Formats: sequence, structure tokens, C-alpha cells
Amino acid sequence: MGVTFPVVGMVGGGQLARMTHQAGIPLGVQFKLLSDGPRDSAALVAADVVVGDYRDLETLRAFARGCDVVTFDHEHVPTEHLRALQADGVVVRPGPDALVHAQDKGVMRARLTAIGVPCPRHRIVTGPADVTAFAAEGDGYPVVLKTVRGGYDGKGVWVVRGEQEAAEPFRAGVPVLAEEKVDFVRELAANVVRSPHGQAVAYPVVESVQVGGVCDTVIAPAPGLDPERSAHAQDLALRIAAELGVTGHLAVELFETTDGRVLVNELAMRPHNSGHWTQDGSVTSQFENHLRAVLDLPLGDPRPRAPWTVMANVLGGDYPDMYFGYLHCMARDPGLKIHMYGKDVKPGRKVGHVNVAGDDLADVRDRARHAADYLRGTIQE
Amino acid sequence: MGVTFPVVGMVGGGQLARMTHQAGIPLGVQFKLLSDGPRDSAALVAADVVVGDYRDLETLRAFARGCDVVTFDHEHVPTEHLRALQADGVVVRPGPDALVHAQDKGVMRARLTAIGVPCPRHRIVTGPADVTAFAAEGDGYPVVLKTVRGGYDGKGVWVVRGEQEAAEPFRAGVPVLAEEKVDFVRELAANVVRSPHGQAVAYPVVESVQVGGVCDTVIAPAPGLDPERSAHAQDLALRIAAELGVTGHLAVELFETTDGRVLVNELAMRPHNSGHWTQDGSVTSQFENHLRAVLDLPLGDPRPRAPWTVMANVLGGDYPDMYFGYLHCMARDPGLKIHMYGKDVKPGRKVGHVNVAGDDLADVRDRARHAADYLRGTIQE
Repeated sequence: MGVTFPVVGMVGGGQLARMTHQAGIPLGVQFKLLSDGPRDSAALVAADVVVGDYRDLETLRAFARGCDVVTFDHEHVPTEHLRALQADGVVVRPGPDALVHAQDKGVMRARLTAIGVPCPRHRIVTGPADVTAFAAEGDGYPVVLKTVRGGYDGKGVWVVRGEQEAAEPFRAGVPVLAEEKVDFVRELAANVVRSPHGQAVAYPVVESVQVGGVCDTVIAPAPGLDPERSAHAQDLALRIAAELGVTGHLAVELFETTDGRVLVNELAMRPHNSGHWTQDGSVTSQFENHLRAVLDLPLGDPRPRAPWTVMANVLGGDYPDMYFGYLHCMARDPGLKIHMYGKDVKPGRKVGHVNVAGDDLADVRDRARHAADYLRGTIQE
Repeated sequence: MGVTFPVVGMVGGGQLARMTHQAGIPLGVQFKLLSDGPRDSAALVAADVVVGDYRDLETLRAFARGCDVVTFDHEHVPTEHLRALQADGVVVRPGPDALVHAQDKGVMRARLTAIGVPCPRHRIVTGPADVTAFAAEGDGYPVVLKTVRGGYDGKGVWVVRGEQEAAEPFRAGVPVLAEEKVDFVRELAANVVRSPHGQAVAYPVVESVQVGGVCDTVIAPAPGLDPERSAHAQDLALRIAAELGVTGHLAVELFETTDGRVLVNELAMRPHNSGHWTQDGSVTSQFENHLRAVLDLPLGDPRPRAPWTVMANVLGGDYPDMYFGYLHCMARDPGLKIHMYGKDVKPGRKVGHVNVAGDDLADVRDRARHAADYLRGTIQE
């Protein structure tokens, strides 16, 4: 069987690769991992692990040799290396022409605007005075500043209230994007998966609750979301996937504004935190569908299996040992689905998540939040 | 985190170990495998694999050294080796005193009868003439003969119609058990999981359709099963688990007889084919609950997630390459859950299974059967 079942190589040994490997086991595909270290989250559970530096082209080349397709658990592989792999004949999904839109916020904003996708007002800025000029073109300060590359989970993002504060982001000497601070009701995410021959599926639009720039809770589907607005957000995500030539999972993070619009915040071209609920809440998880897409297999049903599914991230707290909290939560709630990443606990670090599915949103949300808070050590009962 | 999260060692590299590893990933436990070979089903996907012979005590001892608990994907480890490991201080679950009832059908029958569990009429027989004597004590031939150890999937089982046919099972020189040929309506299975401190959960009783002594289809729950009989079967299984001191998953295969009784056919103390439906049909799969039980973690909710779930085994057919059938089935039915074991295809060999969950039994059964038959090559459309 191994003769014909394909080999997928994933670059990056984080929890997304860990959960992708898990999803690949029933598919019977062969999963190969390029990991920074032997104790990374995915390296702890995968059979076929190469330890190496994804920033080194020869390492990538050697890794790609045994793979039918190469895909990613993060966006940090240099675009030029991806192009070099393609030139070697390696199948890279998503390809560099798509992935650059998840790597470079300047490129992303320019492209989305060009294809008519609504975004916050934005402009590449050259220094603090230019930020003030950008602010003056709109409603003034505050303004959001972002390094165009390398930011995640609130890193590389500043909300500045005046020209003096605007100096900080420029210190690294990398390009900076200014955006209006959107007056939003809440954040949503539209997750879609698209395969090379153009088949695509859309998951229900979810609400993503952020705390301190980090995803805290995801509610599927987004409560009370107007069905037309939901369909519009799914359409937007499917259109972005098609226009940008995305293969695999695409997460479109959105602002639902106070004046009833939906604006694109960020893109991610890999399984995404806003889709973790699908592991226990939908017929086919984002991880399975990402694999199916990059392997050009027919996609699986994205429909929910319960009226409500809530995901809550488990962040590291002050106490490094979560095992007793884990026992407590399992004993308290036999329906809780715990997903641990095998990572050392550090304050604020994502070390796992919990999913709860059911008929009653308040119940499901309370149970997920309780478990995440208890594991973190925020509550003791 | 790895410091306190426990290490579970599983002996045997088959598909049960493969799916147990998969279930252990979200639990964050460390999974160690003792596999016969590096290309065994579970060895293809697990990170921490020791290749060695489970019949060799020193191999088992070395393997057990790094494990907080040792458990099994099959019943073939010699009882005396398990006792030796226990004497070394190794935690073995299920322990040899329980496991012997799944290893030796003579011991199992004697014990179940002693605790009042209904079984087919049975007796250890010494030769063909003794079989005829056994037959004469009941309704005569046919009689079922079984080697007391080593049989599975119809191997080591004979239905004999007279004294001449009864000679065959004695040729190997191993003890033989005679049983009445039960006049049954159908076969059922009651699956339960029990942890060392005595917590136990019972899955819905399922119907198991056997073809040629091999499990073909499992329907959860068993259609039209009288609720009292269902509760009785669950009670029986829970009682057996408690009386025999089982830790982990216990499958109790049952006959539902034409005269309205439920008789125990076989026991298995590990995840079992009749519980594969739980991966996609229940809140907590048998694999996750087996791990939770042997690690003495609180058990997960065994309740079904859909009114009906049907599992169909994918057996090898004449054509060794299933990949195109696999593509076809995925494209035809996006809700199909395929589980491939990474095994070479050989005629009649279990190489995977499919699960389908839904509201309409006929639809769910048709879809599961179609996929299994198509993958095997029995049907071409």
C-alpha cells in the first residue's frame, strides 16, 4: 500500500504539525516532518522526523526529496527558498505566489484591495511623521502599526496614540504598515479549504474572542450572526482562496464593524487556531481537509456535528505542571475533549486547547472556559 | 510537561496500536511501542518504537523500563512473562490474572460459568470420541471445537458434523474446547472500559455481522434490540470486567439466541473491532478510553454522537493497490470516514475500515458497505 499512498512533508514541528500528523493517520498517507528540534510538539509524536533549519535551502531540498508534496505549519520559510524548491520540481502547497500574502502584510493589503476585498484603510509608512500624516488622512490617532513580516499572536503589532509612540515599530528597520484602528463589534473567522483542481469547502463562520492579541475562545458558529453576513464572509474567503491560488486551509480573520461591514484583518494559509473546534465539532477537521487539499484528494464534509462547539485555548500559567489540573478537568467533565501539545509550560504560551460540543451554547461555553482557566491556574475550583 | 505526563508502552504493532497512538496524541501522554517489525501498522506512525520479539522476556523487560504502564494490542504475550514483569514492579494493564481469560478459552469458560455468566454448553475434550460423547450429552452434532489458545478471526475454530471431522483440531496436540453450536439470531458486542480504581463506562451494545468468521459490519446501536436485553448485556460486561479485574477496554462478544437469551461467545481485553465505530460515533473513542483506563485517568463519555453509526471492515481483495478506490470513495461520499492501516493488501486481510454516522440507518449502512465493497474490489460502481 505504501507504494502508492503519497508522502506529505510538513515544514515546522509545532502543534499544527502535531495535529496534522494525527489527522493523517486514518488517511493512511505517509507524514514526514522537518522540525527545528527533536522535542518540538510534532516531533514527539511523528514517526518520520528530520531535524533541521527551514531557513537553509539545502536542508529544505534534502527534506523535499522524499515528499510528493511539501506543506507548512508556519509561514516563515523564505519565499525565495520556496521558489527554488519549485524550480527543482518540488510540489509546494500552498505555493510561494499564494503564501507571500500570508507572509507579507503589505503584499496582502495591496492584493486584497486590488481584487475589491474590503480591508481597513492602510498604507506603508516610512517613519513617525508619515504615521501622523496617515492618521490625518482619516480620523486621526490611534493608528495600528504592524511590521509587514514576522508578526503573530499580537507580536509585531502596536496600537499607537501619537507620533511619539509611533517611533518604536521603526527601530527594527523593517517595513511598517499603518492601518486604521477599526471600530469593531467582534472578530470573526471564515475558514475555507481549496484543492489544486479548485474544489473548495467552507466551514461555518466562527467568532474569535481575542485577549491581549491572542486567541482565547472560538465559538462555532458565530452566535447571532446574520445569515447573509455569514454567507458573505464565506464568499469572501472562497474568493480570496481562488484569486490568490491558495491550496490547503485558508483562515480569513475578519472584523465585524459597528456599522455592519466585514473587513479582512489577517490571512493564514495553514490550519489555524480559529479552526481547532473542527476536530471535535465537524465531520472533517481542518487538519484532515488541509492534508486532503495539498494531496489533491477529494475534500471532506465541513459541516458541524453539533449545534454549538466552543474551543478555548489553554495558556501556560505560573505553575509548570498541568497534570493535576488535567486529571481534575477530565474527572469533572467526561465530555471535555482535551488537546495537549506536549510543550513545556511557560506563562502565556499556548500549550493546548479544549473543545466542547453540545446543544446549549451557555453550557458549552462555560465548560470550555472553566477547563481552560483551571488548567492555566486562573481558577482553583 | 513531559516530566509528569505518563509514558504508556503498548506491546504489538498492529492497527489497534496505530489507532491507540492516534488517540493518545491529544491526551499528551507519551506513547512507546514494542513492534515485531519497523513496517508494522503502528510502527509507521509512532515516534518511539522498539523493534523486538514480545515472546522474549528480556526484550519485554528492557521495553518496560521506560514505561509507567504496559498494555497490549493483542493477547499473545505469554502469561508467565507478564507475571515476571509484575514481579519486577512493572505495572501491567490488563494484568495477567485478568488477561488469561482472553488468552485461554478453557479458563474463560470455567470462570464465567463459576460467576454465573451464561455461556454456551462447553467442555474440554480429549479426542474425537470424547467430542461425540459431548455431542450426545446435548442435541448431538454439529459441535464447535476451538483450540483454547491462539485463535482469532475464525482461525482455531471448527464446526464439525461428526466424529471423523472432529479429528482435525487435535492434530496440533493442544487442548481443545468443545461448545454447543448456538442457534443464534445475531451476534452482539458489549464494550466496556474499566479503570484500576473501579470507574467503568459502557458503550451502547452493537450488532456485529460476521462473514466467514471475520467481522464484516458493526451497527451501533444494535437495531431493534430490546432495551432490557441491551441493559442486561451491558450489566453482564460490567460484571465480567469487575469480577475478572479487567483494566482497560473489554469487548464481550455475545450471541442473541432464538429463544431470547444472551450468551457470551468471546472476550477481548484491548480495543476491539466491534468498537471501531466509536472513533467517529461516540464522544470518547474506545482507544482514548483504553488509554485513560490503563493510565488510571478519569474515563470519557461513551455516549453516541449520532443516532446511528456503521463500521464496515475493508478487507484486501485481489488487486493490491487501493489508492484509486480510495480516491473514488472520498469523492463519492464527503462524509465517509476512512481509516487505513498502512498495510500491504492481501486477499481477506483487514487493511482498514470505514465509519459513517447519521440519522438514517439504511443510508448509513449502505454508504459504509458501498465504500468497503468498492475498496475491496467486490463492486466497480
